[in-house]
Amino acid sequence: MRMYDLIMKKRNGGELTTEEINFFVDGYTKGEIPDYQVSALMMAIYFNKMNKRETADLTTAIVDSGEVVDLSSINGIKVDKHSTGGVGDTTTLILGPMVAAAGVPVAKFSGRGLGHTGGTIDKLESFDGFSVEVSIKEFINNVNGIGIAIGGQTANLAPADKKLYALRDVTATVDNMSLIASSIMSKKIASGADAIVLDVKTGSGAFMKEEDDSFALAQEMVDIGTHVGRQTIGVITNMDQPLGLAIGNALEVIEAIETLKGNGPDDLTDLCLTLGSHMLVLGGKADTAEEARKILQGIIEDGSGVRKLKELVKAQGGNPDFIDDVSLLPGASFIEDVKAPVDGFVEGIKADDIGIAALILGAGRETKESDIDLGVGIMLEKKVGDQVKKGDVIARIYANDTSKVETSREKLLGAYSFRDREVIKPTLIRGVVTKNGIEKY
Amino acid sequence: MRMYDLIMKKRNGGELTTEEINFFVDGYTKGEIPDYQVSALMMAIYFNKMNKRETADLTTAIVDSGEVVDLSSINGIKVDKHSTGGVGDTTTLILGPMVAAAGVPVAKFSGRGLGHTGGTIDKLESFDGFSVEVSIKEFINNVNGIGIAIGGQTANLAPADKKLYALRDVTATVDNMSLIASSIMSKKIASGADAIVLDVKTGSGAFMKEEDDSFALAQEMVDIGTHVGRQTIGVITNMDQPLGLAIGNALEVIEAIETLKGNGPDDLTDLCLTLGSHMLVLGGKADTAEEARKILQGIIEDGSGVRKLKELVKAQGGNPDFIDDVSLLPGASFIEDVKAPVDGFVEGIKADDIGIAALILGAGRETKESDIDLGVGIMLEKKVGDQVKKGDVIARIYANDTSKVETSREKLLGAYSFRDREVIKPTLIRGVVTKNGIEKY
Repeated sequence: MRMYDLIMKKRNGGELTTEEINFFVDGYTKGEIPDYQVSALMMAIYFNKMNKRETADLTTAIVDSGEVVDLSSINGIKVDKHSTGGVGDTTTLILGPMVAAAGVPVAKFSGRGLGHTGGTIDKLESFDGFSVEVSIKEFINNVNGIGIAIGGQTANLAPADKKLYALRDVTATVDNMSLIASSIMSKKIASGADAIVLDVKTGSGAFMKEEDDSFALAQEMVDIGTHVGRQTIGVITNMDQPLGLAIGNALEVIEAIETLKGNGPDDLTDLCLTLGSHMLVLGGKADTAEEARKILQGIIEDGSGVRKLKELVKAQGGNPDFIDDVSLLPGASFIEDVKAPVDGFVEGIKADDIGIAALILGAGRETKESDIDLGVGIMLEKKVGDQVKKGDVIARIYANDTSKVETSREKLLGAYSFRDREVIKPTLIRGVVTKNGIEKY
Repeated sequence: MRMYDLIMKKRNGGELTTEEINFFVDGYTKGEIPDYQVSALMMAIYFNKMNKRETADLTTAIVDSGEVVDLSSINGIKVDKHSTGGVGDTTTLILGPMVAAAGVPVAKFSGRGLGHTGGTIDKLESFDGFSVEVSIKEFINNVNGIGIAIGGQTANLAPADKKLYALRDVTATVDNMSLIASSIMSKKIASGADAIVLDVKTGSGAFMKEEDDSFALAQEMVDIGTHVGRQTIGVITNMDQPLGLAIGNALEVIEAIETLKGNGPDDLTDLCLTLGSHMLVLGGKADTAEEARKILQGIIEDGSGVRKLKELVKAQGGNPDFIDDVSLLPGASFIEDVKAPVDGFVEGIKADDIGIAALILGAGRETKESDIDLGVGIMLEKKVGDQVKKGDVIARIYANDTSKVETSREKLLGAYSFRDREVIKPTLIRGVVTKNGIEKY
């Protein structure tokens, strides 16, 4: 088999066989096939697409390029969740404890963030002493014991994906549905997930700006899941403005705690209940999403969700007292109010720019080596559709380095737009994709 | 400027600016832009094409990547010729002396062949002592003195083309008209040509199998020439069967000598008169192709063409006596007749397979390091349309290593096809492309 023939076949609109896909992924991972042939193939795939079978085969080949986490000794159906990115997305911190409290085992591997704010691990490290450096045995014991564990990505999972993504990133071949879908799904499958709930963001603050593209991406991933025997559901959710009110690490932790207590922002609460109810159904704890939603609402009301978060923090070495007294969490020495420049209604909040405003303050990493300031960030006080009077506080900046406040404030103000007529609040949940098809709300 | 943005632009159907094309060719030649980005761009160009302006800019950028031969001290208009490859193509050996005898300066740089038989230089080395290792000064003196010189490609001409071609060759991005056209034209322009006549082969033995593709390629090259101020004419000629009768180095030299004396095969003679007449018109020695053809026929009849070949051979150290006594040229110790297996008419002769039959005997190089046996090859006795009786000699094999004869004979016989009804002889010259458009015959 020759890589040249694979490139030519795909270039001419042909379908790659399972053996051909395995050949190229294996050869590329081992360094036997050079970058320049793979980038040519990626561009040919960009133009001529891959069908469902090829996409599933590519996913499987990427999974097989490295280790697969063996979670078979965990009782129950392991349901994983993946969000396609966004700003102010704290769902894992809320969903994990909530779903675990409902009896679905949560065995989650997370990464550190390379974005506007840190990743789930960075956020959990707001709890003094919290560590993800646990052995796989300890990890599994925790899941079997308290129903939840969050680990770092230490195993050599899907190395082909890392190599392919790095190459696609510099050759303008990222935005192909099959390639995006196989990249995401391969990591979930390698992490040992039995079933997967996908939160596919759509809108100005998401990777997919168009709703149709978001549905198509969800469909690709659900098709992969179906092909490889992992039940998968995609929920399409709006990211035209940041989710919730907090952008920053400790600020998002506090928001997560409040949401678990039933005091969270409406949009974040709704999203967690929606994603969580699908996880409960896939995990066999409810027959319908409606039934599952009621279970989760009960978990918020009776406090078992926030108790599960305490158990998780304690089990991994963190101080659970911080949950009852959030003033112990990393904080900011300086808070600046940002005020509405006009009377009117909030028309839009560019999520990306709000993220950058937080990054400027030190809430995220610009490179892998950057340090994060866990205490800084932004709290939104007004969201799209809210009425404001000139001088009303629309957001607050939490800073430790006052020299950065002005730049952040300008970015933040620029992210907001206003108009004098009423603005309809955007609908958060746009639809669901299952193996039975697309349902748009 | 970032290579990533160029790839993205072309991928999305955009037009690359002159600056962008210069940036990528220059950066790639210098090794600053990696292969994997260039191969992705080549694939994007394959799918989204380049327009005339981009193709001309690419050609100019490739020319500027290396040295340009300065032929300004040669009197007259330097007209170069290029054939797009084929089997048994001896035209340079005939056209050079013929056109020089008519007063158009021939300053030709040729390569060694990597194909079924050797290149022009290999063939000229059949004359004992002949050398292309002449300085550029000596080369120019020869052209000004006797009207013709043939040099090796010693200068660093169009290094970007070498790099780009090697990359395209392994990434399935060779067959794009703009890329092929810019590759050919850049080398001609860097070689100092003022005007260019292109012999674009078409048919089963050519790179372009379809006549429409051959016309399109010729059009691309004529457009480039027009853009960069080099008058260019493309002649589309049939390569469904080998040109002439000889395939092999010394055998082709003998055929060239015979053609210059007026005893050549009809197709080869016709092609040389056609290409040569366009060269004379571009070189300002005739107003019309008809007038030019008469001049060239006179040159054959009065022996000045073959005399010019002797002057060329002598000027570059070869023994011109070989031209009057071709038995002095390298020969074969063994000649095997190949006979018709049936009664009927020759329906087809696969040019590629005839070339391979000659290569098997040692007439060509399989790798750059291979030695060529100048004496071996094949003489066709019957061509398409000829009637044969079973047992008639259809071709002769000239060999020095008798162990290779049987394999060569099988390949040769397999290249011929016969049928019992009459076969119309193919038309050699299919049409001409000039800046005024396409004329099909």
